[in-house]
Amino acid sequence: MSHTAHLETVVREIAEEMAQRTDRGEVASYIPELGNVDPGHFALVVTDAEGNVAAGGDADVPFSIQSISKVFTLTLALGMVGDRLWRHVGREPSGNAFNSIVQLERERGVPRNPFINAGAIAVTDVILSGHQPREAIGEILRFMRFLAGDPSIVIDEKVAASEKRTGFRNTALANYMKSFGVVENPVDFTLGVYFHHCAIAMTCRQLATAGRFLAYSGKNPSTGLSVVSAERARRINALMLTCGHYDGSGEFAYRVGLPGKSGVGGGIMAIAPGKASIAVWAPGLDKAGNSHLGRIALEALTKRMGWSIFGV
Amino acid sequence: MSHTAHLETVVREIAEEMAQRTDRGEVASYIPELGNVDPGHFALVVTDAEGNVAAGGDADVPFSIQSISKVFTLTLALGMVGDRLWRHVGREPSGNAFNSIVQLERERGVPRNPFINAGAIAVTDVILSGHQPREAIGEILRFMRFLAGDPSIVIDEKVAASEKRTGFRNTALANYMKSFGVVENPVDFTLGVYFHHCAIAMTCRQLATAGRFLAYSGKNPSTGLSVVSAERARRINALMLTCGHYDGSGEFAYRVGLPGKSGVGGGIMAIAPGKASIAVWAPGLDKAGNSHLGRIALEALTKRMGWSIFGV
Amino acid sequence: MSHTAHLETVVREIAEEMAQRTDRGEVASYIPELGNVDPGHFALVVTDAEGNVAAGGDADVPFSIQSISKVFTLTLALGMVGDRLWRHVGREPSGNAFNSIVQLERERGVPRNPFINAGAIAVTDVILSGHQPREAIGEILRFMRFLAGDPSIVIDEKVAASEKRTGFRNTALANYMKSFGVVENPVDFTLGVYFHHCAIAMTCRQLATAGRFLAYSGKNPSTGLSVVSAERARRINALMLTCGHYDGSGEFAYRVGLPGKSGVGGGIMAIAPGKASIAVWAPGLDKAGNSHLGRIALEALTKRMGWSIFGV
Amino acid sequence: MSHTAHLETVVREIAEEMAQRTDRGEVASYIPELGNVDPGHFALVVTDAEGNVAAGGDADVPFSIQSISKVFTLTLALGMVGDRLWRHVGREPSGNAFNSIVQLERERGVPRNPFINAGAIAVTDVILSGHQPREAIGEILRFMRFLAGDPSIVIDEKVAASEKRTGFRNTALANYMKSFGVVENPVDFTLGVYFHHCAIAMTCRQLATAGRFLAYSGKNPSTGLSVVSAERARRINALMLTCGHYDGSGEFAYRVGLPGKSGVGGGIMAIAPGKASIAVWAPGLDKAGNSHLGRIALEALTKRMGWSIFGV
Repeated sequence: MSHTAHLETVVREIAEEMAQRTDRGEVASYIPELGNVDPGHFALVVTDAEGNVAAGGDADVPFSIQSISKVFTLTLALGMVGDRLWRHVGREPSGNAFNSIVQLERERGVPRNPFINAGAIAVTDVILSGHQPREAIGEILRFMRFLAGDPSIVIDEKVAASEKRTGFRNTALANYMKSFGVVENPVDFTLGVYFHHCAIAMTCRQLATAGRFLAYSGKNPSTGLSVVSAERARRINALMLTCGHYDGSGEFAYRVGLPGKSGVGGGIMAIAPGKASIAVWAPGLDKAGNSHLGRIALEALTKRMGWSIFGV
Repeated sequence: MSHTAHLETVVREIAEEMAQRTDRGEVASYIPELGNVDPGHFALVVTDAEGNVAAGGDADVPFSIQSISKVFTLTLALGMVGDRLWRHVGREPSGNAFNSIVQLERERGVPRNPFINAGAIAVTDVILSGHQPREAIGEILRFMRFLAGDPSIVIDEKVAASEKRTGFRNTALANYMKSFGVVENPVDFTLGVYFHHCAIAMTCRQLATAGRFLAYSGKNPSTGLSVVSAERARRINALMLTCGHYDGSGEFAYRVGLPGKSGVGGGIMAIAPGKASIAVWAPGLDKAGNSHLGRIALEALTKRMGWSIFGV
Repeated sequence: MSHTAHLETVVREIAEEMAQRTDRGEVASYIPELGNVDPGHFALVVTDAEGNVAAGGDADVPFSIQSISKVFTLTLALGMVGDRLWRHVGREPSGNAFNSIVQLERERGVPRNPFINAGAIAVTDVILSGHQPREAIGEILRFMRFLAGDPSIVIDEKVAASEKRTGFRNTALANYMKSFGVVENPVDFTLGVYFHHCAIAMTCRQLATAGRFLAYSGKNPSTGLSVVSAERARRINALMLTCGHYDGSGEFAYRVGLPGKSGVGGGIMAIAPGKASIAVWAPGLDKAGNSHLGRIALEALTKRMGWSIFGV
Repeated sequence: MSHTAHLETVVREIAEEMAQRTDRGEVASYIPELGNVDPGHFALVVTDAEGNVAAGGDADVPFSIQSISKVFTLTLALGMVGDRLWRHVGREPSGNAFNSIVQLERERGVPRNPFINAGAIAVTDVILSGHQPREAIGEILRFMRFLAGDPSIVIDEKVAASEKRTGFRNTALANYMKSFGVVENPVDFTLGVYFHHCAIAMTCRQLATAGRFLAYSGKNPSTGLSVVSAERARRINALMLTCGHYDGSGEFAYRVGLPGKSGVGGGIMAIAPGKASIAVWAPGLDKAGNSHLGRIALEALTKRMGWSIFGV
């Protein structure tokens, strides 16, 4: 059996196994647009270096990518200001829940990493830097469409509006950072952009395509277009590995062994450097706020394909 | 130039570059045995899959491996009790300094991971489990000699005695865990074993050999002897990546891109899965308590050899 | 010498001593309206049970009462909802700085006491409860005028506007409590009222009069008008004693021995139960954010008059 | 009815009311000597300025005074080193549980006040200062006998031995402070003295007598013997008010309105300055670790006698 055929078999098997599991976690319920999603959904899409795509489940159903967008805003912000970004945000795991404010008090408003909420808000603030929110939102959306090679990607405005209406904790984080000068734009502007990029809706097929530059030294191997330098791609992967799953990052590294970023919509994007870009979606979450079956599916995938970055 | 010759050149160049640097960090000073070490030392040893060894600098000068021993006690404890170990210690980065006690109060005495002090004490307590301290110390030492293939490795009793004499913070951590029942043996016994395994003295050559099982699916490829399963080797590597450098773990992953474990004696063991086992020694430390030049040397090595686990 | 003459002498002496001191602390500088106040000001006014007033220094110069207003909003809120208030705020010293957010995370958004910022915002939210901000502000101002017997008291709108423009930390606190449902009104409404009552400008003479009900079992002894029950007056005094000076409350109790409440404008209102209502003003603050000379003056006053509640 | 007759009636009534209550809290259970105490006990003894004693319930049954001893060791240490004591311990409420270690990390090993465990250990260390533990224990015991005017007071050695055997958390605190140099003697010595003074057994009658110097300007009014200056007596009372009931100090001030110190044996000593020294004992504790019925009895007593320091 060819490598591609083997991969397709593995992906199909995993999709079937996940469809049958009854332990599906709990769907995020803080806004109705997430709370009403059917926990029965499952999708897994893997794109390899040659551009072959193995897809299982609801691969073409769009979902709210939520915090997965933070990988792309980080990429965009690094492209805009380079290492100056690290004046606004750190590179260490947080040891706390995704929306903790305790660490901000101890470290004078500088969030620990770009993937907790506070850190992603600080990154968004850098992208905004003096522009109108609408322009920044447009810039981020164009970047997502470019990476996914799909101009049909949109922002779910209902999700964005709900996030804004209920986002008191994020508003607290942003104001807190503002009090230390870490957030520089008007808080409402920065949060407006943040809530919108978290509300981008994508399918697993789109997401797996969008992540390919991280798997192949910063370039999309099919188009040859360079997104970032090889070093920057490695570093973004390192950040995903250490910080991509909030206070479940150690567990994800231990079990899955790939850099990845989860979102509260139940999606996870994972990267097998040199081998594959992967997207999985299963709406139910575990206690740390990461997709329950998504993690289990990725664990099965890396084991069967021998893709762990920590050894065969 | 052959791969081996290339590696030897790179190792020699890095050793020369490091010898010339004047930014050498600060030698640990809490005990005289560490405080009196010459910050001018530097050693780098790389062992590849074929057993070729490239060595630069003071490759045969023994130093106090300190917290690097925690990788080996973790391996030993997993071999003794398997996944039951995780009742005593977690698998998440701590987000705090190596000797913080704050997290223990919040999480009822269970340390976040096996590589912070509290976690390593909990692991040592599992190894001890009812035996005499002398027996447990002997067991750990035999394991180190077996892994390094060198029966001459010894414990520096002066270091162990100094650690014990000044180890009030570790005594606090152990008693604190004892108050929650996480430490089960008499605190003095557990700490006695802990202080002794931290006082093992090894050379970079010995250390690079000892780490080979982690690079090659749990086996020493030269002897063929299996130490752990391939899955366990991957998982130990994952823990080193996320937690191996205290509150500098994110930074090490970001810059070096290899699983590694540092010690306050200035040593770092790093693993390039499938490619190499590496030991570096430079006594001066950075603010997070990790070898300053050791990290810089490893960053140069992975960049020049293309060994980052996060992509080429 | 009569008691009244003695008191007048003591007040005059203290005012003279304070005028000569060169250690005056640092004026709060986060808004220009406070930062521009002359640190040379000093005022001390004592009103006894008979209504005699002993005044020294700038007794008729108005200043921003800031957090002293929290005693009066607490009184007002208790009058409106009684002990139901304690669902929104606790009664324990905080052990943290006045604007800490750490405790809120640990205790699910319920502030420790009504005198730290978060607690006072929660109290203000109770007063607002469904009304328009303008109505609530009017209610608070009318209450202050009634207590001080002086309809000329006003809010310094410039101070209120500056507080609002720079109040990111308070906005963070309010949104954080809102995320737990502890703040019930729109955050902007609650903060609008909060910033306004902190911006009330009063003289020491007015303030000493306004506090009289706390010294005399809940009644103004001159007018005979009852403000609160005797038990409630005692309890408000108890809260001032344990929590009235942020993380300097223990120190104030230890040195002065009276219930009191400080404000960042440099004012302190203190109560000698059964004996006197006291107001002092010296704009320079100590490290805990309390009036430096104000505390020293009160220490001298209680010592010379034998007024400590902890014994003669 | 004379004042004395009124007091006797009130004390008898309260003792009767408490005997009938079924809500008695939970007896401390961490050592058998406390866990086996009958929660049905109740005692209340009040000594007034003239030396009249009003006693109700089990006034002559000895109990373990535990943390109440911290008031007396504080008094002794202040007598030995004066204000230099405050280099070792602070004067602020802690905002944390009685045995919290979190604050020690933040404030470099200096405990917040002399009445939390860490603070009392630091005070004990000052008393010990170079002497043998046996001498320091003897000194403290002699001081208690002198204050109570009763040479029969002893230490319950079984309690002391149990405390030592199970005192891992206190051992953690002491070692932690030792690591910062705040504890100067060998940890075992300091803890030995600490465990012994907490194990002093006294009756309410003895305790009420021992506290009299705090009610009357530092002197025992019956013997005329001076223990401390009037100022020091006031300051110790202030510390009891703000810190005497752990994280229930604010609540005790709010409800009872007297300086007081509780112990986990169910005792509370309270001081009505100028009016009375009070001891109460009811073994069941509330959630903050203070005597449940003891606090309720004192609230009734101060209300009926009009003794609150916060007003009549």
